Amino acid sequence: MIRQAVIMAGGLGSRLKGRTDTMPKGFIELGGEAIVRSSIRKLISAGIEEIIIGTGHCSEWYEKLADEMHILTCVRNNEYADTGSMGTLLRCAENVTGDFLLLESDLIYDSVGLFALINEQRSNVILASGATASGDEVYLEADSDANLVRHSKNRNDLSGIYGELVGISKLTKKTLDAMVAHCNAHLGDEPRMEYETAMSAVSAAAEPGDKIGILKLDDYAWREIDDETHLAMAAEKVFPEIVCREASRAVRREVLLNPGPATTTDSVKYSQVCADICPREHEFGDVMEWISHELSLMAGKPDAVETVLFGGSGTAADEVMVSSCIPDGSKTLIIDNGAYGTRLSKIASVYKLDTEVWKSSGYLPLDVPALKEKIAGGGFTHLVMVYHETTTGLLNPVPELCRFAREHGVTTIVDAVSSFAAIDIDMDRDGIDFMASTSNKNIQGMAGIGFVFCRKEALEKTASYPMRNFYLNLWDQYQYFKKTHQTRFTPPVQSMYSLRQAIIETKVETIAGRYARYSACWDVLVKAVDELGLTMLVPREAQSKLITAIIEPDTPAYSFDTLHDFARAHAFTIYPGKLSDANTFRIANIGDIRPEEMKAFTVLMKEYFRGIGL
Amino acid sequence: MIRQAVIMAGGLGSRLKGRTDTMPKGFIELGGEAIVRSSIRKLISAGIEEIIIGTGHCSEWYEKLADEMHILTCVRNNEYADTGSMGTLLRCAENVTGDFLLLESDLIYDSVGLFALINEQRSNVILASGATASGDEVYLEADSDANLVRHSKNRNDLSGIYGELVGISKLTKKTLDAMVAHCNAHLGDEPRMEYETAMSAVSAAAEPGDKIGILKLDDYAWREIDDETHLAMAAEKVFPEIVCREASRAVRREVLLNPGPATTTDSVKYSQVCADICPREHEFGDVMEWISHELSLMAGKPDAVETVLFGGSGTAADEVMVSSCIPDGSKTLIIDNGAYGTRLSKIASVYKLDTEVWKSSGYLPLDVPALKEKIAGGGFTHLVMVYHETTTGLLNPVPELCRFAREHGVTTIVDAVSSFAAIDIDMDRDGIDFMASTSNKNIQGMAGIGFVFCRKEALEKTASYPMRNFYLNLWDQYQYFKKTHQTRFTPPVQSMYSLRQAIIETKVETIAGRYARYSACWDVLVKAVDELGLTMLVPREAQSKLITAIIEPDTPAYSFDTLHDFARAHAFTIYPGKLSDANTFRIANIGDIRPEEMKAFTVLMKEYFRGIGL
Repeated sequence: MIRQAVIMAGGLGSRLKGRTDTMPKGFIELGGEAIVRSSIRKLISAGIEEIIIGTGHCSEWYEKLADEMHILTCVRNNEYADTGSMGTLLRCAENVTGDFLLLESDLIYDSVGLFALINEQRSNVILASGATASGDEVYLEADSDANLVRHSKNRNDLSGIYGELVGISKLTKKTLDAMVAHCNAHLGDEPRMEYETAMSAVSAAAEPGDKIGILKLDDYAWREIDDETHLAMAAEKVFPEIVCREASRAVRREVLLNPGPATTTDSVKYSQVCADICPREHEFGDVMEWISHELSLMAGKPDAVETVLFGGSGTAADEVMVSSCIPDGSKTLIIDNGAYGTRLSKIASVYKLDTEVWKSSGYLPLDVPALKEKIAGGGFTHLVMVYHETTTGLLNPVPELCRFAREHGVTTIVDAVSSFAAIDIDMDRDGIDFMASTSNKNIQGMAGIGFVFCRKEALEKTASYPMRNFYLNLWDQYQYFKKTHQTRFTPPVQSMYSLRQAIIETKVETIAGRYARYSACWDVLVKAVDELGLTMLVPREAQSKLITAIIEPDTPAYSFDTLHDFARAHAFTIYPGKLSDANTFRIANIGDIRPEEMKAFTVLMKEYFRGIGL
Repeated sequence: MIRQAVIMAGGLGSRLKGRTDTMPKGFIELGGEAIVRSSIRKLISAGIEEIIIGTGHCSEWYEKLADEMHILTCVRNNEYADTGSMGTLLRCAENVTGDFLLLESDLIYDSVGLFALINEQRSNVILASGATASGDEVYLEADSDANLVRHSKNRNDLSGIYGELVGISKLTKKTLDAMVAHCNAHLGDEPRMEYETAMSAVSAAAEPGDKIGILKLDDYAWREIDDETHLAMAAEKVFPEIVCREASRAVRREVLLNPGPATTTDSVKYSQVCADICPREHEFGDVMEWISHELSLMAGKPDAVETVLFGGSGTAADEVMVSSCIPDGSKTLIIDNGAYGTRLSKIASVYKLDTEVWKSSGYLPLDVPALKEKIAGGGFTHLVMVYHETTTGLLNPVPELCRFAREHGVTTIVDAVSSFAAIDIDMDRDGIDFMASTSNKNIQGMAGIGFVFCRKEALEKTASYPMRNFYLNLWDQYQYFKKTHQTRFTPPVQSMYSLRQAIIETKVETIAGRYARYSACWDVLVKAVDELGLTMLVPREAQSKLITAIIEPDTPAYSFDTLHDFARAHAFTIYPGKLSDANTFRIANIGDIRPEEMKAFTVLMKEYFRGIGL
């Protein structure tokens, strides 16, 4: 798995003088976006977790970018005016921890090149293309195994031309170390060494298994922008080609306004396309461990939470908690104010647990004082509740009730299926012992994985609890992975990769940023609801701003199916209500959706409702 | 969902005379493959379930191909010499049942074009490219909404050129019907009508929502081969371009010789990349219904079997059976001759079922006469057994024992996780009432879905059985889907799409064909095992030919980890043994693997074993 990329961005860009006097080359714009931003976007989409930028000339531009995007780490080459690209790479080297991608900052390229490199069997490989006639070619000579022998800007220096260097490579840490050693050994005679020189030297000297291979994509769309001619060619020909090729691989955009599975990015979709792997390989164990660790960090302080993954839906994760976290002889209070509370209570009844159900309105806030009295005086050992009732969009006061319960020695079990990764949660702070969620809602991955977050002390206690089922047992699943670095049963491999990608993208956006975007979408929706004179089921102040239940107008002209089909024909999916005592439809605003898309939906919604005389 | 494609292949190919006197144009070869075969391959990879070929000139070539590939349906246009392509399409029209792809037979094209068309929001859309300078362009004129206005081979006929017709379109049945009506109305004045003419006429006359849009991929790699010049251009330039672009999207090949998840095709991998959908949409219900139906047909006669899908692994499906198919008061015999038999027995014990476990050797065939005596005289109501012990490769005599059990009124429950879709199974014939398998073994899909096959009468009986868990309950899952066309809980959406693709590919290969390929791989493996003097754990005649447990040589020089890592470095993954009383390693030969790959693996295996002095 390639986790890091290094972008060498120290250069002066002297052949673009004027444009780059006070700005690094990477900030030249094409199609309204700085080329380095475009490159960063493609790297994130390719599953890169950290991008190290070696800066020099006008480094503050990159440092500002890094303030905005925490995935970036800037390493300054203060001697950039007196070194070549290898001098910049040298300074980045100590941040590199394993296999990585190495890129020049002044490139535009088709993202498929990253895919092809990552997919390459060889672990050291540089990307090459056929003839570009760019006027600034770096030619590559290869041996009979397509390994790099030497490079030159002068074709006559080489005994044969295998391809042209693109400026994107995949290298091992070992190769990087060898390049650094080569550079250091030649600091005196070649202070302005370019990184290609170090690569050629290292490849030539390497043992067969460590040679640097060349992956040649004859018909690859890319351009390095070193001077005005390149820029003009890029703008006129290569950039449109790249846009066209990438667009041909774009997935049709369907905006899901149902309450999950949520809309996903194309990069989350494509992250499922990767080499087959046996999930019992250590490497895949690392992926799952990383996922668990990163999810845990989203639910609490470091080392406070363990996240246990299951192949199954959010309900499966709910069943894990109810069946695995309540010992015999317990007395459990279940709060039921919607379909998901009812479901938790149904699960408890299947396992014949001693429960008392607190029924409350599906759309009015819970009576907190009465509940606290119940919790304090009812002799309960466990409290089970839903954080966010997907049925209605009602947000329950979990922190207040769970903190109170914990103070009274009650273990708390929370269905956070549709709140996690949008609402800010800290299990310690909020008094939550166990919490369930899923890969396909606010975390914006694909369906197929349920997970249970556990406060560590609470989890340890479950070791002695009775095993009430097999597949969904929490302690066994946790212990087995801890001991073996494998899941007990075959996990949904590709869904795991997409969850990994979704986590990377969540970290880039941040959970606070995500909730702000969701809220902005909700504001757009609610404005339209108000303008139409429609009524929301749940009082505004008790809403999650994630899912909105809207009361259907009392006119025979209204038909949910017609509204649904009209929206669907315009690539929006909406959802019926689920309460037995109120006729509603639901609009969720979770997933990879933007306020302008919600705006487009509200235009349709207005068209429909005005059409039926509202 | 686009399920059908029509290839118009009636033409004489008169401009290629000599080559096509006695052969249709589609059989011209490039890169060693007939271009129509390449097109069929790409259509299957794009998820097409049925390809209708409209034949004419030398139709027997296509009819022979259809004998070999059951996905093809040939429709003959006997008047091909006196009609144009529309005459051929006319004759195919009645086989078309919904939205479909329409292609010319003499095309070479980058498969991304199919992806882009299928992904298009518009349901009527034709693919266009930028300028090809092929000398035989069909130019397209579009209105301001990128809808087809008219076409011509003469650019001066048009008031503007939007793009060039590629010859691949996505159309609705309604549009096809309109094209057919247009053709029939002009049979007298235009007997040789081309299909483009009908498309232009229909689009011009259509209501806004039914216009035929144009999807233009400027930089698209394709060529129609109408004459010798085209063929030369194609061979020299376009074909290599297509090969290069498709190769850049190919996934690194890792051959999994572990006993599942198995190696998958790239098309199964890419089938996960599709527009987001709410799984409660009717359209997605159709996908799941199709999957269940097709799986059922692989396990029994039409209408004999119901297949119920669960989000989870094969073990989840095992637990569904054990917890849902055995009523209180039953007495169950569980055969345990390997880790999976032990697991079934463990599941039964979690649910405190009244069971008796028949322990037998992990590598010797079961004692059938003794078991029959036990079944006949033990007062059992249920028999639970594993079809194929993944632990060792031992194939249990399920048909013999289950038929016998059924004769004695005993309900039979079979774990067929690693036998289904390789071993020929007919649940009625073989006496199996319930059977579990998974998406990621011989069916060659992605992990994440467990399924339970049920003989219909046996399933109906479970309606009154106690509910022992929630998520894994068979009857509720079955009933809910039957009533609502939805699963009870969010299904793994993308795994479903990949299972659909895997089923299409299984049908193309056939289960018998697949087992023959697996057996051919096994033969290669066993030959090498014999040559090395290694011993197989299970007697040859009791083996499944799907998984082989090989006894580790008794020398300190041997290390499974070293063998594993050596194979892994060459993109082969092998697996340790699982028996407590014998040291083995395991080689599976299931999944999308070919005998020549197994051959390459055996070369490595020999190198390793000879290296340690064997």
